[in-house]
Amino acid sequence: MSAARADPAARAIVVGRAGALAEPVALEDGEHDDAIFLGVQEGGAPLFAVEREGVELKGLRDLAVSLPAAQLGAVAYASGVANWARATRFCGICGTATRAGEGGHVRICENGHHHHPRTDPVVIMLVGDGDRVLMGRQASWPAGRYSALAGFVEPGEPLEAAVAREIAEESGIRVRDVRYVASQPWPFPVSLMLGFHATYESGEPHALDGELEDVRWFTRDEVTTAASGDDTWIDGPDVDGLLLPPATAIARLLIDRWLAEG
Amino acid sequence: MSAARADPAARAIVVGRAGALAEPVALEDGEHDDAIFLGVQEGGAPLFAVEREGVELKGLRDLAVSLPAAQLGAVAYASGVANWARATRFCGICGTATRAGEGGHVRICENGHHHHPRTDPVVIMLVGDGDRVLMGRQASWPAGRYSALAGFVEPGEPLEAAVAREIAEESGIRVRDVRYVASQPWPFPVSLMLGFHATYESGEPHALDGELEDVRWFTRDEVTTAASGDDTWIDGPDVDGLLLPPATAIARLLIDRWLAEG
Repeated sequence: MSAARADPAARAIVVGRAGALAEPVALEDGEHDDAIFLGVQEGGAPLFAVEREGVELKGLRDLAVSLPAAQLGAVAYASGVANWARATRFCGICGTATRAGEGGHVRICENGHHHHPRTDPVVIMLVGDGDRVLMGRQASWPAGRYSALAGFVEPGEPLEAAVAREIAEESGIRVRDVRYVASQPWPFPVSLMLGFHATYESGEPHALDGELEDVRWFTRDEVTTAASGDDTWIDGPDVDGLLLPPATAIARLLIDRWLAEG
Repeated sequence: MSAARADPAARAIVVGRAGALAEPVALEDGEHDDAIFLGVQEGGAPLFAVEREGVELKGLRDLAVSLPAAQLGAVAYASGVANWARATRFCGICGTATRAGEGGHVRICENGHHHHPRTDPVVIMLVGDGDRVLMGRQASWPAGRYSALAGFVEPGEPLEAAVAREIAEESGIRVRDVRYVASQPWPFPVSLMLGFHATYESGEPHALDGELEDVRWFTRDEVTTAASGDDTWIDGPDVDGLLLPPATAIARLLIDRWLAEG
């Protein structure tokens, strides 16, 4: 680990509360001890995550629509571990300060309690009912944008139960036949998105719990039209129609799979 | 919440570091404020989790083989939330003490930082190669016991990548075609087991990373014979043959599904 830190070929992804820099940079003097080891790049150069004062970072949601998938994955990983380290400066068990171990992947307090990175499982799900799908929108989103419903998994809850509960809480809809589709890490702050399809059973959609501004059905035609457009949820055109999540989001994968299975 | 706590019909699952009591008990004086609200039982009585001094608890692994699934689920949930609360007495961001909010499902520090229950995603996977499956054993397990390989998901990692990485790290085997099967919460301390099947691609099994004592192939015949036996991983007979995980474990579901799909 000392050798990796001292390697002049070492690069670091700069991360912080506000986002990250897309391009890795050389480590500066004094940064080597606190850099979090992320792995070895092609060609053998070690890659780290560092926080750096006075650097203007780009928001991760902006990076999510502009970076290639592999680079976005590295930035997401760097941000995830750094977010966790920032939230684990003290021990939750005894309140004493923690220090980094194992290249920054464990934090250890003065009483020897070990803390490992936290990853919060989030279910995200598209409810289908033949030729229509259920989607919702948050008030803060651009006009026209709708996406799959989502929510954190609670302790003691199987994924399939979390899917059904979140849909019921957010929309009043009951579902059956919950099917896993794919997963995707998402660094807000350190989430693991678990994508599902579910089949409509009963109920009428209403935005129930205050998280969503609206939740409603969209027809296959509406979704097909929106999917063929040059849409993005950031800096997108102020359209009248439906604006889908970008290609890098797992919500879009769920939508595209549903269209393809139609 | 005050009404639920004061309800004379309220019951509580007693939990602690060492395990839990299988049967819910009445709340005692002074326990009402710290009791963690778990939900409302059939009949309308609220259910809580409490920690209580001087009570002899039964280990959760013992309870896992003796309790019906629904009751085990409630005990697992109670233990999971209580384990998280015990590990979140102080704020990881600023080190100040936390207090319970929202019925015990959030902990809030003096500076207003909110902490939500942590659930650690764990992948558990059975590698199949036609008529044989790969399983491993830890040194602490009863003689003859083998189970599916498992490991924590790392930050920034999709589930399917975690499955392939853990198998490679623990056994040296490379896999393809990783398929989600089912999930199960597991309160050690607060895990969510995510069960997968994977298909063998290359390599010879070796216990590589020190976590496992042995990792090897078992034939369909060996597994079928073991599955038909009255086996259990606790207080099981000291058998010569293969001892499979109990019916309540997701590892056993993965094994039974593999046998059924044969």
